Amino acid sequence: MEIARVRHSDVVHLARREGNGWVLLRRESDHPGADVLREALADGDDLSASGSHAVADADVMLLAPVARPSKLIAIGLNYADHVRESGGEVPDVPLLFAKTPNSIIGPGQPIRWSAERSSRVDYEAELAIVLGRRVDEESLEHDSADPLDAVFGYTCCNDVSARDAQFGDGQWVRGKSFDSFCPLGPWIVTTDEIPDPQRLAITCDVSGERLQESSTAEMIFGCAELVAYVGRHIRLEPGDVIATGTPRGVGFARDPARYLRDGDEVTVTIEGIGSLINPCIVD
Amino acid sequence: MEIARVRHSDVVHLARREGNGWVLLRRESDHPGADVLREALADGDDLSASGSHAVADADVMLLAPVARPSKLIAIGLNYADHVRESGGEVPDVPLLFAKTPNSIIGPGQPIRWSAERSSRVDYEAELAIVLGRRVDEESLEHDSADPLDAVFGYTCCNDVSARDAQFGDGQWVRGKSFDSFCPLGPWIVTTDEIPDPQRLAITCDVSGERLQESSTAEMIFGCAELVAYVGRHIRLEPGDVIATGTPRGVGFARDPARYLRDGDEVTVTIEGIGSLINPCIVD
Repeated sequence: MEIARVRHSDVVHLARREGNGWVLLRRESDHPGADVLREALADGDDLSASGSHAVADADVMLLAPVARPSKLIAIGLNYADHVRESGGEVPDVPLLFAKTPNSIIGPGQPIRWSAERSSRVDYEAELAIVLGRRVDEESLEHDSADPLDAVFGYTCCNDVSARDAQFGDGQWVRGKSFDSFCPLGPWIVTTDEIPDPQRLAITCDVSGERLQESSTAEMIFGCAELVAYVGRHIRLEPGDVIATGTPRGVGFARDPARYLRDGDEVTVTIEGIGSLINPCIVD
Repeated sequence: MEIARVRHSDVVHLARREGNGWVLLRRESDHPGADVLREALADGDDLSASGSHAVADADVMLLAPVARPSKLIAIGLNYADHVRESGGEVPDVPLLFAKTPNSIIGPGQPIRWSAERSSRVDYEAELAIVLGRRVDEESLEHDSADPLDAVFGYTCCNDVSARDAQFGDGQWVRGKSFDSFCPLGPWIVTTDEIPDPQRLAITCDVSGERLQESSTAEMIFGCAELVAYVGRHIRLEPGDVIATGTPRGVGFARDPARYLRDGDEVTVTIEGIGSLINPCIVD
């Protein structure tokens, strides 16, 4: 299934793709932590069965499929060719950092920053895992099952990074968490349609130029290992997101460097999911 | 006012201190992102006026005053004497990192980890800021007011840190975000009672031994500056938490090192707020 978060007639809904339109499944609450996917997962909604009101593509605006996850964990240096271009070393264990949820935007929304805040804003195409169940030490001990059973689905992520802040601080959180620095979407494809997340082509195009081109087969730590590793240290909740790292070709490692500019359009495309497209606005 | 999150007769409430007991103000929702303080702030509840049901101290269990903030930002190396003991350099700008909300526990709850996961778990006494209003580029531009006007109140934080994971990764998020590694409490004292957060004595005792003793006057970047700086990069929402850094005396910098052990009890005390006490359990 393709599950999206959409705005229709000024109301936010969870929706399932049907033909050329969307079946509206559930309205988002007005809670300060509102996130209709988390709400549906918490209530155990059957997203394949429910919903009756169908609307056409033209009548919905796609939003970030996850709006307010309890956390957004990202993995650094998880493709060997990106480790080399970054001048780092292949890590022995997954290298975790966090992006804060204020950074999340949906497809079509602008990645936006002020020139005085950063002059080195970079793109990073990444496969994002969306959790469907809690994963913690206890669940990992008692579930003999595949860690991927805890995954709800996959979406595209652009792990936008202000390299000056990221490298200046040494700690990556600030440079990775500016408002609008985490485009997600265009929708979530559930695991039944992506039984093996380690064989998906992944690309990033900036204003028509292909700058990243790889396969999730090149990940150092695969999705199953990441879910188990993160969950063992940091309890994962339904609706949480893990961004699994980016392949080679990022802007700061190119010669000459290719940072994002006002008017650029960034497209992250992952096989079997779709394309996440965001314009750039520099104030 | 002292505002707490409490459990009374198996229900979680927001509560206000009155005499030797608590006035229950509001029940926590059953939303997956439930956090009764965020809920009250979003609805604009008047916490000084509302509530009628008073209960005795003995009939409530204090919980973390903030349960599920949209983010928990922490500041590294923000006391000069701690920078020296850590062998770092005084930063030019506040050094941000994140703790994920799964790490939050309340007063009395155990800081708990397995010996195989870390053998170098450390304490860090910190003043925590709890936001009452949104702070972002727009609000900072239009509000000529003091950034502290956006603060709801202050509480105690123990920024528990697995030094092996923290320093092994280089990125601090994992070692700072193990489940139970962010005790908060015992309650929030609102800003009317703490007009100047830069003159508070702060101490940390471990099993009766005083290991940290300083004043928030020693911060490199004060609370007002931190709120403005963080909000300018990372939009802050009502109920968000900023942990403002720790003074000298942490375990890893002592000779010999003093890491937390099974059976230890850690007490963070801040003048005008109170004491946050947590036992340690090593599995």
